[in-house]
Amino acid sequence: MDYPSKVLAKAVDEISGLPGIGKKSALRLALHLLRQPASQGVALGTAIQNLVIDIKYCKDCHNFSDNDICEICADDKRNAEVLCVVEDVRDVMAIENTSKFKGKYLVLGGKISPMEGVGPAQLHIDSIEKKLETGEVKELIFALSATMEGDTTAYYIYKKFKQFNVQFSSIARGISVGDELEYADEISLGRSIVNRLPYNEKL
Amino acid sequence: MDYPSKVLAKAVDEISGLPGIGKKSALRLALHLLRQPASQGVALGTAIQNLVIDIKYCKDCHNFSDNDICEICADDKRNAEVLCVVEDVRDVMAIENTSKFKGKYLVLGGKISPMEGVGPAQLHIDSIEKKLETGEVKELIFALSATMEGDTTAYYIYKKFKQFNVQFSSIARGISVGDELEYADEISLGRSIVNRLPYNEKL
Repeated sequence: MDYPSKVLAKAVDEISGLPGIGKKSALRLALHLLRQPASQGVALGTAIQNLVIDIKYCKDCHNFSDNDICEICADDKRNAEVLCVVEDVRDVMAIENTSKFKGKYLVLGGKISPMEGVGPAQLHIDSIEKKLETGEVKELIFALSATMEGDTTAYYIYKKFKQFNVQFSSIARGISVGDELEYADEISLGRSIVNRLPYNEKL
Repeated sequence: MDYPSKVLAKAVDEISGLPGIGKKSALRLALHLLRQPASQGVALGTAIQNLVIDIKYCKDCHNFSDNDICEICADDKRNAEVLCVVEDVRDVMAIENTSKFKGKYLVLGGKISPMEGVGPAQLHIDSIEKKLETGEVKELIFALSATMEGDTTAYYIYKKFKQFNVQFSSIARGISVGDELEYADEISLGRSIVNRLPYNEKL
Protein backbone atom coordinates (compact mmCIF):
# COMPACT_ATOMS: atom_id res chain seq x y z
CA MET A 1 0.00 0.00 0.00
CA ASP A 2 1.15 3.52 -0.73
CA TYR A 3 1.00 5.93 2.16
CA PRO A 4 0.45 9.61 1.54
CA SER A 5 3.21 10.58 3.95
CA LYS A 6 6.64 9.22 4.77
CA VAL A 7 6.30 9.68 8.54
CA LEU A 8 3.03 7.74 8.40
CA ALA A 9 4.62 4.97 6.32
CA LYS A 10 7.52 4.72 8.76
CA ALA A 11 5.22 4.61 11.81
CA VAL A 12 2.98 1.95 10.24
CA ASP A 13 6.06 -0.04 9.35
CA GLU A 14 7.42 0.06 12.90
CA ILE A 15 4.08 -0.58 14.62
CA SER A 16 3.33 -3.54 12.38
CA GLY A 17 6.61 -5.07 13.55
CA LEU A 18 4.86 -5.88 16.83
CA PRO A 19 3.43 -9.40 17.15
CA GLY A 20 -0.22 -9.77 16.20
CA ILE A 21 -0.40 -6.33 14.57
CA GLY A 22 -0.62 -6.27 10.80
CA LYS A 23 -0.35 -3.34 8.43
CA LYS A 24 -4.06 -2.54 8.64
CA SER A 25 -4.16 -2.54 12.44
CA ALA A 26 -0.96 -0.52 12.53
CA LEU A 27 -2.53 2.07 10.24
CA ARG A 28 -5.64 2.16 12.43
CA LEU A 29 -3.46 2.75 15.52
CA ALA A 30 -1.43 5.44 13.76
CA LEU A 31 -4.60 7.24 12.65
CA HIS A 32 -5.94 6.98 16.19
CA LEU A 33 -2.78 8.64 17.52
CA LEU A 34 -3.17 11.40 14.97
CA ARG A 35 -6.68 12.12 16.19
CA GLN A 36 -5.42 12.54 19.78
CA PRO A 37 -3.38 15.47 21.08
CA ALA A 38 0.24 15.08 19.93
CA SER A 39 1.29 14.82 23.58
CA GLN A 40 -0.23 11.34 23.78
CA GLY A 41 1.88 10.04 20.91
CA VAL A 42 4.98 11.70 22.35
CA ALA A 43 4.31 10.11 25.76
CA LEU A 44 3.79 6.70 24.14
CA GLY A 45 7.01 7.00 22.15
CA THR A 46 8.95 8.13 25.20
CA ALA A 47 7.54 5.34 27.38
CA ILE A 48 8.56 2.71 24.81
CA GLN A 49 12.06 4.15 24.49
CA ASN A 50 12.48 4.39 28.26
CA LEU A 51 11.26 0.82 28.58
CA VAL A 52 13.86 -0.70 26.28
CA ILE A 53 16.69 1.58 27.43
CA ASP A 54 16.14 1.80 31.18
CA ILE A 55 14.77 -1.63 32.11
CA LYS A 56 16.93 -3.55 34.57
CA TYR A 57 16.88 -7.15 35.61
CA CYS A 58 17.20 -8.25 39.21
CA LYS A 59 20.64 -9.82 39.64
CA ASP A 60 19.18 -12.34 42.04
CA CYS A 61 16.01 -13.64 40.39
CA HIS A 62 16.09 -12.12 36.85
CA ASN A 63 12.74 -10.46 37.34
CA PHE A 64 12.38 -6.94 35.94
CA SER A 65 13.42 -4.33 38.42
CA ASP A 66 14.09 -0.63 38.83
CA ASN A 67 17.16 -1.40 40.91
CA ASP A 68 19.90 -4.03 40.91
CA ILE A 69 17.85 -6.18 43.26
CA CYS A 70 14.08 -6.35 42.76
CA GLU A 71 11.55 -5.46 45.44
CA ILE A 72 10.63 -9.07 46.07
CA CYS A 73 14.23 -10.24 46.53
CA ALA A 74 14.99 -7.21 48.72
CA ASP A 75 11.97 -7.84 50.94
CA ASP A 76 13.16 -9.42 54.22
CA LYS A 77 9.61 -10.37 55.14
CA ARG A 78 9.43 -12.87 52.30
CA ASN A 79 10.46 -16.42 52.97
CA ALA A 80 13.77 -17.14 51.26
CA GLU A 81 13.40 -20.84 52.13
CA VAL A 82 10.81 -21.31 49.41
CA LEU A 83 11.93 -20.68 45.84
CA CYS A 84 9.37 -20.62 43.06
CA VAL A 85 10.81 -21.32 39.61
CA VAL A 86 8.84 -19.67 36.78
CA GLU A 87 9.42 -19.23 33.08
CA ASP A 88 8.57 -15.63 32.65
CA VAL A 89 8.07 -12.29 34.36
CA ARG A 90 4.36 -12.56 33.57
CA ASP A 91 4.20 -15.67 35.73
CA VAL A 92 5.65 -13.75 38.68
CA MET A 93 2.97 -11.10 38.23
CA ALA A 94 0.24 -13.74 37.91
CA ILE A 95 1.32 -15.51 41.11
CA GLU A 96 1.81 -12.20 42.96
CA ASN A 97 -1.75 -11.30 41.99
CA THR A 98 -3.06 -14.31 43.89
CA SER A 99 -1.36 -13.00 47.12
CA LYS A 100 -0.99 -16.67 48.11
CA PHE A 101 2.75 -16.96 47.84
CA LYS A 102 5.20 -15.32 50.23
CA GLY A 103 8.44 -16.95 49.10
CA LYS A 104 10.89 -15.78 46.49
CA TYR A 105 11.10 -16.35 42.76
CA LEU A 106 13.53 -17.33 40.10
CA VAL A 107 12.71 -16.36 36.53
CA LEU A 108 14.20 -18.88 34.09
CA GLY A 109 13.61 -16.68 31.06
CA GLY A 110 11.95 -19.47 29.06
CA LYS A 111 11.67 -23.23 29.00
CA ILE A 112 13.72 -25.95 27.40
CA SER A 113 12.36 -26.26 23.87
CA PRO A 114 14.51 -27.98 21.25
CA MET A 115 11.92 -26.98 18.63
CA GLU A 116 12.63 -23.29 19.31
CA GLY A 117 16.34 -23.87 19.83
CA VAL A 118 16.21 -23.12 23.56
CA GLY A 119 18.50 -25.34 25.60
CA PRO A 120 19.32 -25.29 29.34
CA ALA A 121 22.27 -22.97 28.69
CA GLN A 122 19.95 -20.16 27.58
CA LEU A 123 18.00 -20.33 30.86
CA HIS A 124 19.01 -19.00 34.27
CA ILE A 125 19.56 -22.50 35.66
CA ASP A 126 22.98 -21.51 37.03
CA SER A 127 21.17 -18.96 39.23
CA ILE A 128 19.15 -21.78 40.78
CA GLU A 129 22.41 -23.54 41.56
CA LYS A 130 23.79 -20.40 43.18
CA LYS A 131 20.69 -20.11 45.35
CA LEU A 132 20.78 -23.80 46.34
CA GLU A 133 24.48 -23.59 47.20
CA THR A 134 23.78 -21.00 49.89
CA GLY A 135 21.80 -23.72 51.71
CA GLU A 136 19.04 -21.25 52.47
CA VAL A 137 16.45 -22.81 50.14
CA LYS A 138 14.41 -25.66 51.68
CA GLU A 139 11.78 -26.07 49.00
CA LEU A 140 11.87 -25.53 45.27
CA ILE A 141 8.47 -25.13 43.59
CA PHE A 142 8.08 -25.65 39.86
CA ALA A 143 5.43 -23.24 38.58
CA LEU A 144 5.89 -24.04 34.91
CA SER A 145 3.48 -24.49 32.00
CA ALA A 146 1.57 -27.77 31.94
CA THR A 147 3.13 -28.59 28.57
CA MET A 148 5.79 -30.98 27.41
CA GLU A 149 8.36 -28.17 27.43
CA GLY A 150 7.39 -27.19 30.97
CA ASP A 151 7.61 -30.80 32.16
CA THR A 152 10.96 -31.28 30.43
CA THR A 153 12.35 -28.15 32.06
CA ALA A 154 11.18 -29.25 35.51
CA TYR A 155 12.65 -32.72 34.99
CA TYR A 156 15.98 -31.31 33.84
CA ILE A 157 16.24 -29.05 36.88
CA TYR A 158 15.17 -31.84 39.20
CA LYS A 159 17.78 -34.26 37.80
CA LYS A 160 20.51 -31.64 37.99
CA PHE A 161 19.86 -30.55 41.57
CA LYS A 162 18.34 -33.60 43.27
CA GLN A 163 21.57 -34.14 45.25
CA PHE A 164 20.85 -30.93 47.15
CA ASN A 165 18.92 -31.33 50.39
CA VAL A 166 15.82 -29.59 49.01
CA GLN A 167 12.21 -30.63 48.69
CA PHE A 168 10.95 -30.36 45.11
CA SER A 169 7.30 -29.66 44.47
CA SER A 170 5.11 -28.61 41.59
CA ILE A 171 2.00 -26.45 41.51
CA ALA A 172 -1.17 -28.54 41.66
CA ARG A 173 -2.78 -29.47 38.38
CA GLY A 174 -6.41 -30.41 38.19
CA ILE A 175 -9.79 -28.98 37.50
CA SER A 176 -9.94 -25.18 37.48
CA VAL A 177 -12.43 -23.37 39.66
CA GLY A 178 -15.67 -23.01 37.74
CA ASP A 179 -14.94 -25.92 35.36
CA GLU A 180 -17.66 -28.44 34.55
CA LEU A 181 -16.28 -31.98 34.75
CA GLU A 182 -17.86 -33.08 31.48
CA TYR A 183 -15.92 -30.42 29.56
CA ALA A 184 -12.59 -30.94 31.32
CA ASP A 185 -9.87 -32.59 29.28
CA GLU A 186 -9.11 -36.20 30.13
CA ILE A 187 -5.55 -35.66 31.27
CA SER A 188 -6.45 -32.93 33.76
CA LEU A 189 -9.39 -34.92 35.06
CA GLY A 190 -7.29 -38.07 35.30
CA ARG A 191 -4.55 -36.26 37.21
CA SER A 192 -7.09 -34.66 39.51
CA ILE A 193 -8.43 -38.10 40.49
CA VAL A 194 -5.01 -39.65 40.97
CA ASN A 195 -3.81 -36.65 43.01
CA ARG A 196 -7.05 -36.27 44.97
CA LEU A 197 -6.87 -34.28 48.19
CA PRO A 198 -8.35 -34.98 51.62
CA TYR A 199 -11.69 -33.19 51.75
CA ASN A 200 -11.38 -29.91 53.56
CA GLU A 201 -14.05 -27.36 54.32
CA LYS A 202 -11.74 -24.54 53.30
CA LEU A 203 -10.75 -26.21 50.01
CA MET B 1 -1.85 -5.51 38.56
CA ASP B 2 1.48 -4.63 40.15
CA TYR B 3 4.39 -4.35 37.79
CA PRO B 4 7.89 -5.13 38.98
CA SER B 5 9.32 -2.04 37.34
CA LYS B 6 8.15 1.53 36.90
CA VAL B 7 9.33 1.84 33.29
CA LEU B 8 7.39 -1.32 32.48
CA ALA B 9 4.28 -0.03 34.25
CA LYS B 10 4.51 3.27 32.38
CA ALA B 11 4.98 1.57 29.01
CA VAL B 12 2.05 -0.83 29.61
CA ASP B 13 -0.06 2.10 30.67
CA GLU B 14 0.70 4.09 27.52
CA ILE B 15 0.40 1.14 25.12
CA SER B 16 -2.96 0.11 26.61
CA GLY B 17 -4.22 3.61 25.81
CA LEU B 18 -4.40 2.50 22.16
CA PRO B 19 -7.80 1.30 20.96
CA GLY B 20 -8.35 -2.45 21.11
CA ILE B 21 -5.27 -3.06 23.26
CA GLY B 22 -5.93 -3.97 26.88
CA LYS B 23 -3.47 -4.22 29.77
CA LYS B 24 -2.66 -7.87 29.03
CA SER B 25 -1.95 -7.30 25.34
CA ALA B 26 0.06 -4.20 26.22
CA LEU B 27 2.17 -6.25 28.62
CA ARG B 28 2.67 -8.90 25.95
CA LEU B 29 3.84 -6.23 23.48
CA ALA B 30 6.14 -4.65 26.07
CA LEU B 31 7.69 -8.03 26.88
CA HIS B 32 8.11 -8.68 23.16
CA LEU B 33 10.00 -5.40 22.78
CA LEU B 34 12.23 -6.36 25.69
CA ARG B 35 13.16 -9.60 23.98
CA GLN B 36 14.25 -7.74 20.82
CA PRO B 37 17.38 -5.59 20.46
CA ALA B 38 16.79 -2.23 22.20
CA SER B 39 17.24 -0.52 18.81
CA GLN B 40 13.84 -1.84 17.70
CA GLY B 41 12.03 -0.23 20.61
CA VAL B 42 13.94 3.00 20.11
CA ALA B 43 13.02 3.03 16.41
CA LEU B 44 9.36 2.35 17.23
CA GLY B 45 9.29 5.13 19.82
CA THR B 46 10.96 7.56 17.44
CA ALA B 47 8.64 6.68 14.56
CA ILE B 48 5.58 7.31 16.75
CA GLN B 49 6.94 10.64 17.98
CA ASN B 50 7.88 11.73 14.47
CA LEU B 51 4.43 10.73 13.27
CA VAL B 52 2.52 12.91 15.71
CA ILE B 53 4.97 15.82 15.57
CA ASP B 54 5.89 15.95 11.88
CA ILE B 55 2.69 14.93 10.12
CA LYS B 56 1.26 17.58 7.84
CA TYR B 57 -2.12 17.87 6.22
CA CYS B 58 -2.58 18.92 2.62
CA LYS B 59 -4.03 22.44 2.63
CA ASP B 60 -6.12 21.56 -0.39
CA CYS B 61 -7.69 18.18 0.36
CA HIS B 62 -6.80 17.50 4.04
CA ASN B 63 -5.08 14.25 3.18
CA PHE B 64 -1.86 13.51 5.05
CA SER B 65 1.14 14.90 3.30
CA ASP B 66 4.86 15.48 3.68
CA ASN B 67 4.47 18.94 2.13
CA ASP B 68 1.90 21.73 2.23
CA ILE B 69 0.16 20.25 -0.82
CA CYS B 70 -0.10 16.46 -1.11
CA GLU B 71 1.23 14.47 -4.04
CA ILE B 72 -2.25 13.83 -5.43
CA CYS B 73 -3.30 17.49 -5.37
CA ALA B 74 0.05 18.54 -6.82
CA ASP B 75 -0.21 16.03 -9.67
CA ASP B 76 -1.22 17.88 -12.86
CA LYS B 77 -2.01 14.60 -14.61
CA ARG B 78 -4.96 13.99 -12.30
CA ASN B 79 -8.36 15.25 -13.34
CA ALA B 80 -9.35 18.20 -11.17
CA GLU B 81 -12.85 18.13 -12.68
CA VAL B 82 -13.78 15.07 -10.63
CA LEU B 83 -13.75 15.47 -6.85
CA CYS B 84 -14.17 12.40 -4.66
CA VAL B 85 -15.42 13.20 -1.15
CA VAL B 86 -14.27 10.66 1.47
CA GLU B 87 -14.46 10.50 5.24
CA ASP B 88 -10.99 9.46 6.06
CA VAL B 89 -7.41 9.18 4.86
CA ARG B 90 -7.82 5.42 4.85
CA ASP B 91 -10.51 5.76 2.21
CA VAL B 92 -8.12 7.70 -0.04
CA MET B 93 -5.60 4.88 0.32
CA ALA B 94 -8.26 2.25 -0.35
CA ILE B 95 -9.45 3.98 -3.53
CA GLU B 96 -5.88 4.69 -4.66
CA ASN B 97 -5.17 0.98 -4.27
CA THR B 98 -7.81 0.16 -6.86
CA SER B 99 -5.99 2.41 -9.43
CA LYS B 100 -9.44 3.08 -10.93
CA PHE B 101 -9.75 6.74 -9.98
CA LYS B 102 -7.73 9.53 -11.53
CA GLY B 103 -9.52 12.54 -10.08
CA LYS B 104 -8.80 14.41 -6.88
CA TYR B 105 -9.98 13.91 -3.33
CA LEU B 106 -11.40 15.80 -0.44
CA VAL B 107 -11.04 14.29 3.02
CA LEU B 108 -13.93 15.37 5.26
CA GLY B 109 -12.27 14.13 8.45
CA GLY B 110 -15.35 12.20 9.59
CA LYS B 111 -19.05 12.04 8.98
CA ILE B 112 -22.00 13.85 10.50
CA SER B 113 -22.91 11.84 13.59
CA PRO B 114 -25.04 13.50 16.26
CA MET B 115 -24.48 10.41 18.45
CA GLU B 116 -20.75 11.10 18.54
CA GLY B 117 -21.22 14.86 18.66
CA VAL B 118 -19.85 15.44 15.16
CA GLY B 119 -21.69 18.16 13.27
CA PRO B 120 -21.01 19.70 9.84
CA ALA B 121 -18.84 22.39 11.44
CA GLN B 122 -16.26 19.79 12.47
CA LEU B 123 -15.88 18.53 8.91
CA HIS B 124 -14.02 20.13 6.03
CA ILE B 125 -17.22 21.07 4.22
CA ASP B 126 -16.00 24.64 3.71
CA SER B 127 -13.13 23.21 1.65
CA ILE B 128 -15.65 21.62 -0.70
CA GLU B 129 -17.25 25.04 -1.11
CA LYS B 130 -13.89 26.59 -1.89
CA LYS B 131 -13.25 23.96 -4.57
CA LEU B 132 -16.72 24.35 -6.08
CA GLU B 133 -16.35 28.14 -6.17
CA THR B 134 -13.34 27.87 -8.48
CA GLY B 135 -15.72 26.38 -11.07
CA GLU B 136 -13.16 23.73 -11.94
CA VAL B 137 -15.11 20.80 -10.46
CA LYS B 138 -17.67 19.22 -12.82
CA GLU B 139 -18.55 16.10 -10.81
CA LEU B 140 -18.63 15.46 -7.10
CA ILE B 141 -18.52 11.79 -6.08
CA PHE B 142 -19.65 10.72 -2.62
CA ALA B 143 -17.50 7.78 -1.52
CA LEU B 144 -18.90 7.55 1.99
CA SER B 145 -19.83 4.65 4.27
CA ALA B 146 -23.08 2.89 3.42
CA THR B 147 -24.44 3.78 6.86
CA MET B 148 -26.99 6.26 8.11
CA GLU B 149 -24.21 8.67 9.05
CA GLY B 150 -22.65 8.37 5.61
CA ASP B 151 -26.02 8.94 3.92
CA THR B 152 -26.79 11.91 6.17
CA THR B 153 -23.43 13.48 5.36
CA ALA B 154 -23.94 13.03 1.62
CA TYR B 155 -27.44 14.50 1.84
CA TYR B 156 -26.23 17.50 3.85
CA ILE B 157 -23.49 18.26 1.33
CA TYR B 158 -25.87 17.75 -1.59
CA LYS B 159 -28.45 20.13 -0.11
CA LYS B 160 -25.83 22.75 0.66
CA PHE B 161 -24.18 22.77 -2.76
CA LYS B 162 -26.90 21.72 -5.20
CA GLN B 163 -27.08 25.27 -6.57
CA PHE B 164 -23.60 24.80 -8.03
CA ASN B 165 -23.47 23.57 -11.59
CA VAL B 166 -22.01 20.21 -10.60
CA GLN B 167 -23.08 16.63 -11.17
CA PHE B 168 -23.41 14.71 -7.90
CA SER B 169 -22.84 10.98 -7.88
CA SER B 170 -22.30 8.24 -5.37
CA ILE B 171 -20.18 5.11 -5.54
CA ALA B 172 -22.22 2.08 -6.64
CA ARG B 173 -23.69 -0.09 -3.92
CA GLY B 174 -24.63 -3.65 -4.59
CA ILE B 175 -23.32 -7.17 -4.30
CA SER B 176 -19.58 -7.43 -3.69
CA VAL B 177 -17.45 -9.51 -5.99
CA GLY B 178 -17.39 -13.07 -4.65
CA ASP B 179 -20.64 -12.71 -2.69
CA GLU B 180 -23.26 -15.44 -2.81
CA LEU B 181 -26.72 -13.96 -3.33
CA GLU B 182 -28.35 -16.09 -0.65
CA TYR B 183 -26.05 -14.64 2.02
CA ALA B 184 -26.28 -11.01 0.86
CA ASP B 185 -28.29 -8.67 3.07
CA GLU B 186 -31.70 -7.66 1.76
CA ILE B 187 -30.97 -3.96 1.42
CA SER B 188 -27.85 -4.46 -0.69
CA LEU B 189 -29.59 -7.07 -2.82
CA GLY B 190 -32.67 -4.85 -3.21
CA ARG B 191 -30.57 -1.88 -4.23
CA SER B 192 -28.59 -3.98 -6.67
CA ILE B 193 -31.80 -5.01 -8.45
CA VAL B 194 -33.26 -1.53 -8.52
CA ASN B 195 -29.98 -0.05 -9.79
CA ARG B 196 -29.27 -2.86 -12.24
CA LEU B 197 -26.78 -2.16 -15.00
CA PRO B 198 -26.89 -2.99 -18.72
CA TYR B 199 -25.07 -6.30 -19.15
CA ASN B 200 -21.55 -5.78 -20.33
CA GLU B 201 -18.90 -8.34 -21.16
CA LYS B 202 -16.30 -6.30 -19.30
CA LEU B 203 -18.45 -5.95 -16.15
